[in-house]
Amino acid sequence: MISKNKLKELAAYRQQKRCDEEAVFVVEGPKMAAEAMASGFAVKVLCATEEWRAESGERRAESGEFYEVSQAELERLSNMRTPNQVWMLVERPDNSSLITHHSSLVLALDRIQDPGNMGTIMRTADWYGIRHIVCSQDTVSCYNPKVVQASMGAIFRTRVDYVDLPQWLAGCGMPVYGATLDGEPITELSSRNTEPSVLLIGNEGRGISAEALAAVTRPVTIPNRGGTAESLNASVAAAILIDRLIG
Amino acid sequence: MISKNKLKELAAYRQQKRCDEEAVFVVEGPKMAAEAMASGFAVKVLCATEEWRAESGERRAESGEFYEVSQAELERLSNMRTPNQVWMLVERPDNSSLITHHSSLVLALDRIQDPGNMGTIMRTADWYGIRHIVCSQDTVSCYNPKVVQASMGAIFRTRVDYVDLPQWLAGCGMPVYGATLDGEPITELSSRNTEPSVLLIGNEGRGISAEALAAVTRPVTIPNRGGTAESLNASVAAAILIDRLIG
Repeated sequence: MISKNKLKELAAYRQQKRCDEEAVFVVEGPKMAAEAMASGFAVKVLCATEEWRAESGERRAESGEFYEVSQAELERLSNMRTPNQVWMLVERPDNSSLITHHSSLVLALDRIQDPGNMGTIMRTADWYGIRHIVCSQDTVSCYNPKVVQASMGAIFRTRVDYVDLPQWLAGCGMPVYGATLDGEPITELSSRNTEPSVLLIGNEGRGISAEALAAVTRPVTIPNRGGTAESLNASVAAAILIDRLIG
Repeated sequence: MISKNKLKELAAYRQQKRCDEEAVFVVEGPKMAAEAMASGFAVKVLCATEEWRAESGERRAESGEFYEVSQAELERLSNMRTPNQVWMLVERPDNSSLITHHSSLVLALDRIQDPGNMGTIMRTADWYGIRHIVCSQDTVSCYNPKVVQASMGAIFRTRVDYVDLPQWLAGCGMPVYGATLDGEPITELSSRNTEPSVLLIGNEGRGISAEALAAVTRPVTIPNRGGTAESLNASVAAAILIDRLIG
């Protein structure tokens, strides 16, 4: 059972601003909830339907508040069109305390705007073992609910930093691959990249900003075989480049 | 100007069923509208704001009805959250009359459900020069408005057939690549595929159906380098496989 007041209080977290202020994020659905509980991230609040409790066998988070809710109550909390059994509020980790896992490739995102693209890029990075993503300040928040859901759990396994990107790139001390229109065809790279490097992905419509582009030391291009399409989706381009570099 | 009755009549095309019955589809936004008009597809109705006429310089479709509409009227017609200057109703082509453009790879889609994925796959295929996509009957319609928009114009350049997929695959006479969990690592394929082949992509959550899987002659796998992620997004997996096969 949940009181009307508590429900109202929690429904306020549908506003991203509220989540930002309290350094929490919303996680939904049984699959993501299971990942959250296994991740070691602190679960502050867990709301779930009776159905979830029956199926998951009383798998409550160890700490935090727990409320059983009806489907209608879940709908008041949820950001999704069809809320699915569980809604939880999870604490954001303190990045400065996180050990940066080393992977051969660091992803740098310049002004990615679409939450679906951002989440999908995180999911792809996770598949390839990339543990560190560095973003320009105006890239969509990785704690946006749509990003969290599209990441399919990568949010719990990836360090994401928001920085002054041109400055970070200039000082990172690694070669920087960046997708441009007239770079080396990615299909002609001799072999898998093994030295620590950065792959820079630009904005959906406008590509890499001039300031960030200045730091690109290895411009690469995905050849346009068809000759008719104008561009690739940003998360698709990122995936093809990641695969060619470290797949 | 548009009459109230006409607006009501056209707003009915927000229902996919209505579009299906009349073999038309909705195209929105100046970029897609320009592609539609350049495509040779028949434009039945074009509704646009004054802004569009000013910017595009009276670029009406040669045939079909034209109505100038207000932003509020455009919102009544549109499937989009932020309608953008133009809405049009375009006739679906008769596939049986289309010449199948030859490309070295035919895409086969087994039960792709998400319109964003479907459109993104079409867009990626277009980039790689793939002109023919064959879908199982229960794959999302390529004329779904979200598919059309996500295809970024590929809808005007791609033949899409809906067929009994297992039967089509069994009779196609080409090798069939299919993404499975224990296929040959795609990274170890010796070189670009040049013989006519089929690449089969499965459903987002459930993969390739048992019936379609029986027709796969070349099972391939995208190696899971990270070891933590459970899967890749379907449109991302399709892109990586297409790139490895014909990129």
